Amino acid sequence: MANTTAMANAIRALAMDAVQQANSGHPGAPMGMADMAVALWARHLRHNPANPQWVDRDRFILSNGHGSMLLYALLHLTGYDLPIEELKNFRQLHSKTPGHPEVDITPGVETTTGPLGQGITNAVGFALAEKLLAAEFNRPEHAIVDHHTYVFLGDGCLMEGISHEAAALAGAWKLNKLVALYDDNGISIDGQVAPWFVDNTAERFKAYQWNVIGPVDGHDVDAVDAAIAQAKQSGDKPSLIICKTHIGKGSPNRQDTAKAHGEPLGAEEIALTRAQLGWDAAPFEIPAPVYGDWDAKAGGTQAERDWDARFAAYAQAYPELAQAFSRRVAGALPTNFAEIAAQALEQAHAKQQAVATRKASQLALEAFTAALPELLGGSADLTGSNLTNTPSTPALRLDAQGAVVRTDDGRIGRHINYGVREFGMAAIMNGVALHGGFIPYGGTFLTFSDYSRNAIRMAALMKRRVVHVFTHDSIGLGEDGPTHQSIEHAASLRLIPNLDVWRPADTAETTVAWTQALLNQDRPSALLLSRQAVPYAPKRDVALADIGRGAYVLAEPQDAGLDAPAQAVLIATGTEVALALQAQKLLAGQNVAVRVVSMPSTSVFDRQDADYQRVVLSLGLPRVAVEMGTTSLWWKYGCTAVVGIDSYGESAPAAKLFEHFGFTPENVAATVQAVLDPS
Amino acid sequence: MANTTAMANAIRALAMDAVQQANSGHPGAPMGMADMAVALWARHLRHNPANPQWVDRDRFILSNGHGSMLLYALLHLTGYDLPIEELKNFRQLHSKTPGHPEVDITPGVETTTGPLGQGITNAVGFALAEKLLAAEFNRPEHAIVDHHTYVFLGDGCLMEGISHEAAALAGAWKLNKLVALYDDNGISIDGQVAPWFVDNTAERFKAYQWNVIGPVDGHDVDAVDAAIAQAKQSGDKPSLIICKTHIGKGSPNRQDTAKAHGEPLGAEEIALTRAQLGWDAAPFEIPAPVYGDWDAKAGGTQAERDWDARFAAYAQAYPELAQAFSRRVAGALPTNFAEIAAQALEQAHAKQQAVATRKASQLALEAFTAALPELLGGSADLTGSNLTNTPSTPALRLDAQGAVVRTDDGRIGRHINYGVREFGMAAIMNGVALHGGFIPYGGTFLTFSDYSRNAIRMAALMKRRVVHVFTHDSIGLGEDGPTHQSIEHAASLRLIPNLDVWRPADTAETTVAWTQALLNQDRPSALLLSRQAVPYAPKRDVALADIGRGAYVLAEPQDAGLDAPAQAVLIATGTEVALALQAQKLLAGQNVAVRVVSMPSTSVFDRQDADYQRVVLSLGLPRVAVEMGTTSLWWKYGCTAVVGIDSYGESAPAAKLFEHFGFTPENVAATVQAVLDPS
Repeated sequence: MANTTAMANAIRALAMDAVQQANSGHPGAPMGMADMAVALWARHLRHNPANPQWVDRDRFILSNGHGSMLLYALLHLTGYDLPIEELKNFRQLHSKTPGHPEVDITPGVETTTGPLGQGITNAVGFALAEKLLAAEFNRPEHAIVDHHTYVFLGDGCLMEGISHEAAALAGAWKLNKLVALYDDNGISIDGQVAPWFVDNTAERFKAYQWNVIGPVDGHDVDAVDAAIAQAKQSGDKPSLIICKTHIGKGSPNRQDTAKAHGEPLGAEEIALTRAQLGWDAAPFEIPAPVYGDWDAKAGGTQAERDWDARFAAYAQAYPELAQAFSRRVAGALPTNFAEIAAQALEQAHAKQQAVATRKASQLALEAFTAALPELLGGSADLTGSNLTNTPSTPALRLDAQGAVVRTDDGRIGRHINYGVREFGMAAIMNGVALHGGFIPYGGTFLTFSDYSRNAIRMAALMKRRVVHVFTHDSIGLGEDGPTHQSIEHAASLRLIPNLDVWRPADTAETTVAWTQALLNQDRPSALLLSRQAVPYAPKRDVALADIGRGAYVLAEPQDAGLDAPAQAVLIATGTEVALALQAQKLLAGQNVAVRVVSMPSTSVFDRQDADYQRVVLSLGLPRVAVEMGTTSLWWKYGCTAVVGIDSYGESAPAAKLFEHFGFTPENVAATVQAVLDPS
Repeated sequence: MANTTAMANAIRALAMDAVQQANSGHPGAPMGMADMAVALWARHLRHNPANPQWVDRDRFILSNGHGSMLLYALLHLTGYDLPIEELKNFRQLHSKTPGHPEVDITPGVETTTGPLGQGITNAVGFALAEKLLAAEFNRPEHAIVDHHTYVFLGDGCLMEGISHEAAALAGAWKLNKLVALYDDNGISIDGQVAPWFVDNTAERFKAYQWNVIGPVDGHDVDAVDAAIAQAKQSGDKPSLIICKTHIGKGSPNRQDTAKAHGEPLGAEEIALTRAQLGWDAAPFEIPAPVYGDWDAKAGGTQAERDWDARFAAYAQAYPELAQAFSRRVAGALPTNFAEIAAQALEQAHAKQQAVATRKASQLALEAFTAALPELLGGSADLTGSNLTNTPSTPALRLDAQGAVVRTDDGRIGRHINYGVREFGMAAIMNGVALHGGFIPYGGTFLTFSDYSRNAIRMAALMKRRVVHVFTHDSIGLGEDGPTHQSIEHAASLRLIPNLDVWRPADTAETTVAWTQALLNQDRPSALLLSRQAVPYAPKRDVALADIGRGAYVLAEPQDAGLDAPAQAVLIATGTEVALALQAQKLLAGQNVAVRVVSMPSTSVFDRQDADYQRVVLSLGLPRVAVEMGTTSLWWKYGCTAVVGIDSYGESAPAAKLFEHFGFTPENVAATVQAVLDPS
């Protein structure tokens, strides 16, 4: 019989010791959640320390990521490849134990957490992916996808607005295999939460159609164990287990105080705590019997072996499904992807349709969603505006019991109505991407990327393939006015490291943007798309091939009918490419020879070799950029002038706004003339 | 007896007609909320169309701002200076009737709405300001501050995460004079909300300790009227009135459909609707009796006159309080503000303290909060980290009945524990600033400005004085790692039009940043502050005077002991100013003469005259910028090289990170050397 008290105290000791050694960190949360962790990890969590990538493992997410030492202690104790030396190196450069848990750094960490509220929202994405994958691939007697998603979360996560979006969707989707354990300790950084956190959380979650269990004593392993067992019985609701705990449990002078939260206990208090816990072992030493009680290697290997056998039987019964499943969870695109993409681009180039780039996106999606069942679309209540749906993506529908309803021809829904929940959508997409099996994409208006911004950043930090479809990307949306018109948003998204931002000009560029977004396994992409229609930009075949390099020479002076060497370069993006071409023609009539560069993606262009960059930027020639947004970033490309907007938009028909803000061929041409002749 | 049916139909007709004329807009919401509006505006709202600025008016906020025609119709009908011509010009350039309501554009519009969820959150700020102002200024028999805040909101607002933060705080603060009317029509843009919006909203709001009334029939004026009357009786809880309505009410073919939401009904359907409503008047014509029923001018003038009399009595009894109140609601700083600011700067310069700039901010705040009772501080659960509190700002405390508890020496609390609710805090601060009487400021970590970004933008768009205290502004925060380390945030905030971003280097610059932030009545400011200590940057008196210009020459080569003309310029901000000074010394030892420019605020510098800019930027000399963040914006200032970070941070002690990312005097010096001798 395992000594659960000692198991929990091992976590407490490691948390105290590592934080003390680093002289930095958060001991209080791990000490408070230690018993909850024993209940979950020793009695329920199905995982294999020898293979953190086992597809059908249960997922564990520490939403209150500052309690990272809880997770590191658990991974170490249960047998993951995280030796004690790494715990001694807590929060040191290039250790496997950074201040907050980071996916891909530490084996067993499922997602990067720390920004509060996002972990629980990722978890909703994990559970959604599990549910949809199960619906798509499981067959009678063959439950190859069948795992739970467990989350620990604290007061901070529950105060954040995103917890509302996450919980509401988990309830709507009846994610019964999502089990959240709330570390209800009544303390946040500013002290006892009572004056600023009066929510009745149980009632709140019942209102979201959750199964609420407790409060239970979070330090009673058996009670938490029983609550988890009960949660696993839930047929059509996600579960919240409210665990009453004491932050810094075991510390005579810090327990139940905010001081336990974010600083080392200090040598003296650690000694007092050891005495109170009856924990004699030296720092970073764990008695062998405790290691023995925690060891999950044998059980984990057996669990995975059992699943392997089940999957082998499945593969025998459904060889094609099994192959598709393996491809999907590996994140590999279909082998004919390059062909599909080339064909889509060829068609776009042949048809030369004059459509809004949001429509161009839908056209590209028609090809890609038909060929890639892993594409999981959605929109934050703007489906008809974002055009994220296609004939291949029926809307997700559930029956009253929560089962996924198939269409008449047997397909599962794969377009999600996220409701008006931009941040939730983005963080759920991160969870879906982290789980695997799907490539999530979702839409809203570009300006409301503000709402989801930190989740976009998290996808970039975590290097996950998530695609954001941001439509209505400029003053070109017209009458809705400055609250909806993006000014700084394109530039601002371009600042996020490891995010590819695309602002394509037409159907061809949009097809390439989608292609690259899907090919990029290790970064998210944002597609910035217009409400208003644009003409197709005529381009030679060599230009077509260069779109994927982020910028390319679209038109030489000859293309505008002037046979002379270029005197200046117009760099444009998105809908302004057509404007640049008009200005080029106008200037040709004035005997000014201009080259037009289309730059759909600055970050992709920045990754090209210096020679290519030099040629495209046409070094030596004066450059003028044209984009309906803030001018700040264009100086980087050596521009002498920028036709942009550094104030807010206005409510008016788009055509009036273009004139008002100077987005006319005449003004662009005049700007080039002024650059060439500054007198 | 007023004909309430005709009154409501007048709104419906104006909404249909204006949207049709603009060929753009949202008729469904105004038509659905028309009866609710009659109940509130004709029977409860205390306002004066002749003076939209009357201090003690009730506030009305349309959180579902796309229904702007409801508000414009109400303002026109009740007698505000909004002639019918403006309604005919709905959504046209420079009209007073933009697509979404915009404060300062249209008389009677209290806040700019459209980005969902923020209106109700602004309203919480309005109600908080009212409550605190009443607590501070009212005296027995003299209730000079005594008004309600009314909000209309829809499904979209309630799905947004920020509604959770807003509602939780309204409950915690027992804002009984906040009355929200929920337009519960069951439809959002993607259709019937049932599959993606399963919240039991009544139970949810009860969980926040709200007084929930209804559902009532939102088309029964008497029922809504009675519900509002009941809400006004609430002693210690905000009220939510759930009004069951039909979107597009009256339209035979569009009512209860998403199609009623965001497009004109069309001439044919408008005719059918007119017939169904029994509304015979021509487009934009309102029968005289209906105008008569709506006219609120006489009542409003009388209401304000009554208040004037009450205020006169108050002024007689409490002349100093009355004077202070008048100054406060006018938004004027104390007459001795310049003196206070100068003194604070002088002291900072004299003491030359080596402290973190967050500490420098607290030192400046000590002076300012002592002198300015209107400063209303707060933090999103990071008070001890953001250092937003001072001895002059006791924490807000309420008794069980919701009354503001004064300190032993009679002061009301004016530091708010917002909890972990960054977006909510920012939008509530916007509401406080819009209400008047306080200058709100609030803190969180810089990286989590991502969470509140759109509310920061809204303050800038609305031109309101709100101060954001963003601490832990770089990798200098150390061990918490990349989830918490800002990389793109300084640059990204600088992109927001009309927001002043300050990244001060020491106590003097921080004092100036606060001074400017308080002086700037028509723009918000963000102060980016360090966790780690920095030395005071020695500066001559002339430099001291130039800090307020956003950038200035801090040190010439002579200051580093090299008597030679500058060969290059180092531009630095915040904590990197000290680093630039070290590099300057190092370079002086290598016989390289460098000028150091400190640039605490790029936007303020950008507003200076060209001559000053030329001198500071030292045109002709090569320039190198140093900032621990993304490099993208620095090319604008003609830099040849930037010492920055274009990837994510790492978890490690700060000193290790500075070395790892090249923020050492040696690397900065080498960069300058490389620029001077690129061979």
